Amino acid sequence: MSGKPEDSVGHSAALAQLSALLGDRLSTGSSILDQHASDEAHHAPVRPDAVAFPESTDEVSQVLAICSAHKCPVTAFGVGTSLEGHVIPVQGGVSLDTSRMNRVLAVNEADLDAVVQPGVTRKQLNEELRATGLMFSVDPGADATMGGMAATRASGTNAVRYGTMRENVLALEVVLADGRIIRTGSRARKSSAGYDLTKLFVGSEGTLGIITELTVRLYGQPEAVSAATCAFETIEGAVDAVILTIQSGLPVARIELLDEFQIKGMNLYSDMGLPEKPHLFLEFHGTETGVAEQAERFGEFAAEYGGSGFEWATRTEDRNRLWAARHNAYYAAKALRPGAEGYVTDVCVPISRLAEAIAETKADLAASSLSAPLVGHVGDGNFHLSILIDPSDPAERKEASRIADRVAERALAMGGTVTGEHGVGLGKKKFMRAEHGEAYTVMATLKQTLDPQGLLNPGKLIERN
Amino acid sequence: MSGKPEDSVGHSAALAQLSALLGDRLSTGSSILDQHASDEAHHAPVRPDAVAFPESTDEVSQVLAICSAHKCPVTAFGVGTSLEGHVIPVQGGVSLDTSRMNRVLAVNEADLDAVVQPGVTRKQLNEELRATGLMFSVDPGADATMGGMAATRASGTNAVRYGTMRENVLALEVVLADGRIIRTGSRARKSSAGYDLTKLFVGSEGTLGIITELTVRLYGQPEAVSAATCAFETIEGAVDAVILTIQSGLPVARIELLDEFQIKGMNLYSDMGLPEKPHLFLEFHGTETGVAEQAERFGEFAAEYGGSGFEWATRTEDRNRLWAARHNAYYAAKALRPGAEGYVTDVCVPISRLAEAIAETKADLAASSLSAPLVGHVGDGNFHLSILIDPSDPAERKEASRIADRVAERALAMGGTVTGEHGVGLGKKKFMRAEHGEAYTVMATLKQTLDPQGLLNPGKLIERN
Repeated sequence: MSGKPEDSVGHSAALAQLSALLGDRLSTGSSILDQHASDEAHHAPVRPDAVAFPESTDEVSQVLAICSAHKCPVTAFGVGTSLEGHVIPVQGGVSLDTSRMNRVLAVNEADLDAVVQPGVTRKQLNEELRATGLMFSVDPGADATMGGMAATRASGTNAVRYGTMRENVLALEVVLADGRIIRTGSRARKSSAGYDLTKLFVGSEGTLGIITELTVRLYGQPEAVSAATCAFETIEGAVDAVILTIQSGLPVARIELLDEFQIKGMNLYSDMGLPEKPHLFLEFHGTETGVAEQAERFGEFAAEYGGSGFEWATRTEDRNRLWAARHNAYYAAKALRPGAEGYVTDVCVPISRLAEAIAETKADLAASSLSAPLVGHVGDGNFHLSILIDPSDPAERKEASRIADRVAERALAMGGTVTGEHGVGLGKKKFMRAEHGEAYTVMATLKQTLDPQGLLNPGKLIERN
Repeated sequence: MSGKPEDSVGHSAALAQLSALLGDRLSTGSSILDQHASDEAHHAPVRPDAVAFPESTDEVSQVLAICSAHKCPVTAFGVGTSLEGHVIPVQGGVSLDTSRMNRVLAVNEADLDAVVQPGVTRKQLNEELRATGLMFSVDPGADATMGGMAATRASGTNAVRYGTMRENVLALEVVLADGRIIRTGSRARKSSAGYDLTKLFVGSEGTLGIITELTVRLYGQPEAVSAATCAFETIEGAVDAVILTIQSGLPVARIELLDEFQIKGMNLYSDMGLPEKPHLFLEFHGTETGVAEQAERFGEFAAEYGGSGFEWATRTEDRNRLWAARHNAYYAAKALRPGAEGYVTDVCVPISRLAEAIAETKADLAASSLSAPLVGHVGDGNFHLSILIDPSDPAERKEASRIADRVAERALAMGGTVTGEHGVGLGKKKFMRAEHGEAYTVMATLKQTLDPQGLLNPGKLIERN
């Protein structure tokens, strides 16, 4: 369960030097190794040989220089909430844990940006921003680290309005495989000065470099916010209301689909008391007038497609409860089958194909022995399944994998992508050639160029490692 | 004035094969060569050996394969409106003109995207979109091609609301130096599936590949639009009003600064009849109510900083006249000194430094023998100078270059970038190391990887070519 045997001498030599560098911040304790052997999803755990806890960019640079000299793999680790096995050190070596690099270095209120270390979590950042009236928008379900979110090109419920990590990372500091430190981008809002290295590292899943600092966009907290839930008789009705909303240009801040099965789970897990029907959860941001106008407009669209029980959550605590429930969707899903594990997958399609993609997915599920709640950031054409399996039953795991594969293949056939926000990691690697064709060869060439020894998160994203 | 002598045998062999491929769509006519020897700015012209007019991706692929086999440089050419010498074939070889690849291939109204060939111009696209109620947002001054705009990472007046080409190109088809054709991205609105090659090619100025197809975002034409002009006693007052507007989160669609000298030029060139004071030109997009609310809010901000004569242009023809005048700012600048050429430069700084950057720039100009109107997409922190010089006077050119250098160096010192939207080309290459440090080495490495013979737009962006 650790690195390849032929590498063990190199690994040992690296670990000795790392231990000299980091002292007790290089750990080989059994519980620490276990904690860094897996993420939140269904991929088989693999222990690293050691876990490094650097406290500065300079230390990360030294760690990489040592590992590079000894051909020892390095896999970055935030809080381990990835869903496609990104943090699993499948070739052993060092798990580079960023939890001690967790400071907010600067908040530039006037420029609406912040500079943070990679181990800062999104909730921590928003907590530190609270007094400023500003917010960081990207919100995957988990309280992930900023470094991990950038590496995965994460998004969440309000990407439809504020964008994903792609749009919200302005600049990075990155340590390359050989220990060189580079800075990409600047605090200027736009630039035409050369290749967009920032965007190259965002979404590269720790395979091209280790992110040691991020400059991210902030937004003013909206003057007025209102949230709503709306039930639909059919999932098609809900999706059609979403499509009309997006096409009309209504600037919804959040528009989330939850199928009847997910609602059932949320009723169980979060005591929501909602009718067991497909729902949309929405949020509107703007001025008092603007928010009211948006809500009224949406109400008209929903009514066209059989929406009912359009309920408001105007009090902050009610809104918080609603979105906490939404963010806990994964845990709620698991409540539907006690002891089950959620085999999680996500895809994203052009919104014109969304209703069809969801209907065919639901048909796949109906024909399967397994069940899976469906939720989605549907304003972007992105939806997720948590296929409920008994983790000890290989047949169920195989069936879940078959369903997830069909969903991914269908997304490609519809001009979409096999992952809207969870990333490639181990789980989606097999689709990369089908999605990208010859461009996947180019990705492999870039990987070879920036990490010629294949030491950064080996086995992920690029097939040949 | 053509390619390096030592390459001429290879170039000749390439041209013979290209002639066999393209027939009379490979031109060596003198006027055609001259037309492809320069762009709109001040860099010295260099003729290509020939101009190729491919009509398909497959032909572009064959052109590149032939040129690659014979080590013949290839420089892409749209309509020649670049401002930093991007299209000048400084090492001779082939100018690859995309004007015959000018079809809008698809408009997906439901998905708010369009697929276009690189030779489509922005006005042509918007003309073809007119009946759909959709629009393409990015609007540099010139009626540039979509391929050129993507290659330069162009933006324009409404980037503050709708983003630059970085945000608005969803997917590309690119022909690599060796003739391989790749597709990057998809029509999905977001993806976490691998390295963001789309963003790597956007802004790469034809040095990594030739863009042969673009999928771009569209927006619904806003329900209501209103434009306004507002005069200020001082440029600081105007900039402070901008800063407050942006920091407050007011979703202005356009907020353009024009100094008193630029206004004078516009009065001359476009008969605007405006008071010769610094102005902001604004546009608000939204619902009728929303637009009124935004305008009212802006009026309050402007009043705080001495704004006066807040005038509305509600009729479409008045708005069009206003923005036509703004887009013709470069020509208006030249009207201030008949026979002069505009030595054009642009930078972008964090908005908190904008007032300071502009004040120091104006001080530089006051201390110089030259004058230059200043305009800016100031909502992004981006501003431009057109330094008026006698093109036949080397001393004036040198002085303009000195001023432009100071502006660029100041932008870097303020945490900004040496070019917000004009690109690197020939003119800003010398600042790349200062702006990017070791990351510039990484850019050079990527260039070497994707174009090992250095044939794609050699001499641009990357220093060592």
